[in-house]
Amino acid sequence: MKIPEILLVETEHKPGSLARVLQVVGESGLLIENLNAVRRDQHRTVWELTLEFDEAVDTTLIDRIDGLPGTRVIGKSDRVFDRHRGGKIEMVAKVPLTSVQQLRDIYTPGVARVCLSIRDDPRLAREYTNIGNTVAVVTNGTAILGLGNIGPLAGLPVMEGKAALFWHLAGISGVPILIDETDPARLAEVVAAIAPGFGAIQLEDIAAPACFEVEDDLRRRLDRPVLHDDQHATAVVTLAALFKATRQIGRELGECVVGQIGLGAAGMGIAQLLLRKGVRESLGTDVDERAYARFESLGGRRSTLEEIMRTADIVIATTGRRGLIPPTAVRAGQIVLALTNPDPEIEPVVAIAHGAAVAADGKSVNNVSVFPGLFRGALDARAPRFTAAMLIAAAETLAAEAPEDQLVPDPLDREAHLAVAEAVRRAAEEAVLAGDAMPA
Amino acid sequence: MKIPEILLVETEHKPGSLARVLQVVGESGLLIENLNAVRRDQHRTVWELTLEFDEAVDTTLIDRIDGLPGTRVIGKSDRVFDRHRGGKIEMVAKVPLTSVQQLRDIYTPGVARVCLSIRDDPRLAREYTNIGNTVAVVTNGTAILGLGNIGPLAGLPVMEGKAALFWHLAGISGVPILIDETDPARLAEVVAAIAPGFGAIQLEDIAAPACFEVEDDLRRRLDRPVLHDDQHATAVVTLAALFKATRQIGRELGECVVGQIGLGAAGMGIAQLLLRKGVRESLGTDVDERAYARFESLGGRRSTLEEIMRTADIVIATTGRRGLIPPTAVRAGQIVLALTNPDPEIEPVVAIAHGAAVAADGKSVNNVSVFPGLFRGALDARAPRFTAAMLIAAAETLAAEAPEDQLVPDPLDREAHLAVAEAVRRAAEEAVLAGDAMPA
Repeated sequence: MKIPEILLVETEHKPGSLARVLQVVGESGLLIENLNAVRRDQHRTVWELTLEFDEAVDTTLIDRIDGLPGTRVIGKSDRVFDRHRGGKIEMVAKVPLTSVQQLRDIYTPGVARVCLSIRDDPRLAREYTNIGNTVAVVTNGTAILGLGNIGPLAGLPVMEGKAALFWHLAGISGVPILIDETDPARLAEVVAAIAPGFGAIQLEDIAAPACFEVEDDLRRRLDRPVLHDDQHATAVVTLAALFKATRQIGRELGECVVGQIGLGAAGMGIAQLLLRKGVRESLGTDVDERAYARFESLGGRRSTLEEIMRTADIVIATTGRRGLIPPTAVRAGQIVLALTNPDPEIEPVVAIAHGAAVAADGKSVNNVSVFPGLFRGALDARAPRFTAAMLIAAAETLAAEAPEDQLVPDPLDREAHLAVAEAVRRAAEEAVLAGDAMPA
Repeated sequence: MKIPEILLVETEHKPGSLARVLQVVGESGLLIENLNAVRRDQHRTVWELTLEFDEAVDTTLIDRIDGLPGTRVIGKSDRVFDRHRGGKIEMVAKVPLTSVQQLRDIYTPGVARVCLSIRDDPRLAREYTNIGNTVAVVTNGTAILGLGNIGPLAGLPVMEGKAALFWHLAGISGVPILIDETDPARLAEVVAAIAPGFGAIQLEDIAAPACFEVEDDLRRRLDRPVLHDDQHATAVVTLAALFKATRQIGRELGECVVGQIGLGAAGMGIAQLLLRKGVRESLGTDVDERAYARFESLGGRRSTLEEIMRTADIVIATTGRRGLIPPTAVRAGQIVLALTNPDPEIEPVVAIAHGAAVAADGKSVNNVSVFPGLFRGALDARAPRFTAAMLIAAAETLAAEAPEDQLVPDPLDREAHLAVAEAVRRAAEEAVLAGDAMPA
């Protein structure tokens, strides 16, 4: 996985001085992610240069930049770390506390009557506590981003990030829950034990195949929504992109053959939702033999990368393997979603150059567009679970909210998040009315 | 348990009109907790009348007040419920999110480097996440206030109250965790499983004797502070009150015989801390035979209410039984802390009238003065556990911070909470320096 590092580089005001720095970077085989002038006086400029490194930063690069005439590296920016200092979230009181009367109302003795009202009618917990607005963000740290099994504590910044997004984009209280347990049955046991305090459960960055067992188990046991983000939020944003992409090329999703390269958490979630929505055929391939039993039970057919590239109308890659798809394998008119982050199986521009009708990567087709609204809608409906109809409604809404030239809305488009929440709420309420409570 | 209910009563401006209302209340055997004029025009006044009811409100009272000339009950105030509407706490982001650059810093890809730094050095989680400021407020709902076993969900308003106090009084993020499990071993198992995400664990309103086993188990297993509030925070405030009370009457705590009536969670926590601090003798009595083995293992001696009242210099009652101590049993010069809320084993004024040198109840000697600072200090010191020295430091500081005429500070005295935190932090750091890491 590539990780950004920000260098602060000072150059003289001489034509070509910045170009020389970038040439050194290019010779190091590094990509430039961003470049900003952050300080400038009469003679010199300080540039904030964001580079994509592998885990270990190449320190010889700094020496080589420093060796250029009139140029020096004056430091590494701590902007990312600064933004994390002290954490990204906090639990605060919504009620004031400036008088003894307030203390007596929100704490003993006043609180007792509220407790008794909930004892007598548990539904009142939604009125008089924050439970209906609270989602547990649960991980065991076995598949944190593309970093793999780095443990739950090292995954906490991601969980706090999810919680910060929940709050900013949907007004939800996300509570990170770290569980150092890899056995799926025991993991589900712990999550079920603490579920009474949460309106819904978001499973996050749990490796396949354990993630499937944990989610299935919890869906069976709990009376509240459970969703493995990596599977289903990714599936929703993918379905949204496909709604938009098929419309752009004048085809129907239901008549398309879909080929999936990679059947991990994301791939399996996508397969499940697409098969539920209806496609002509679903082909799949994975390096892990264990994937096929589940994929076939969903209605998919085992295939190969070659067959998929040769026959599928839509190719969806979720392998974690950069550059896996040979450009020459792309078929004219194909829709190609290469979703591995940060480096896709094939760059969209390359796929287009080789004949793809539509192509996108995981930076634009990303589950951040989905999970805040999905949970907001489920909580607002007091839904007992997520259903396929709720996920499909979210995807349809995302496609409708996307700007003309994009497959999905911008991730910070608050209107889009609200629209998703509203569509999910309606779908949940209709499902209850129709007596359809089948899990997605 | 008595619970306040607020009636809104309108009276005419005629001498004696309010007195008649209060007379009816008195005839109903109810106590008036508070009385305020909330609205007043030329002819009439609306009174907010807070009464202490048993669980079920006596509705005939309303008819009888309504029957008085020129008087009517215009409603029940929902002030307590209003203050609870939507819950009392929420998880919010501390970081802004208005640009894609911010998204990339706090979420992927920026967050990856923070994750890796924590993987390589787990102590950095304290720098770059909120974990060092986060306390799990755990309950199984078996002993919520004086309401008993009403289950964890009905206890959530209390846990949110604790979290609101944590935030207001110590800047701590308190996270309610509800676990529907009464078996102590399984309860401890679940708490241990989720402990990696929290800086400390506060056990709350778990019934004795399960609470002892759960806490002992977790203290053995975890590398972070665990505290059963009902035992130890109550013990700290009691010790503080005794420091102050013995000073007032010119005696030394170490030369006093202490008699405890009631050996549940609070009683046992008090016995443990007093015996650790040192008293001449500790006598105890309880209706539950199971209490004695633990009490004696701490160094206490089984006794009776009669012997305690006859021989103890200090009497501490934590029985949950209103009016249990016969006024005539009080011995001249005794210190009497009757801590059951809301109705003590003996009213302080009655104890004083019968010769007690100092007397107080659980409204003034309350653990709300203790737990925010106790956890703040432990977190700031990154203490691996609470020690007796930390609890004693908290008690000494509380006694020092108390106004001349009170045994402990006002609960909303923020200076006092800060002072407790500072004293606990110092005690924790000294304990680490001295190699003393013995649990309290």
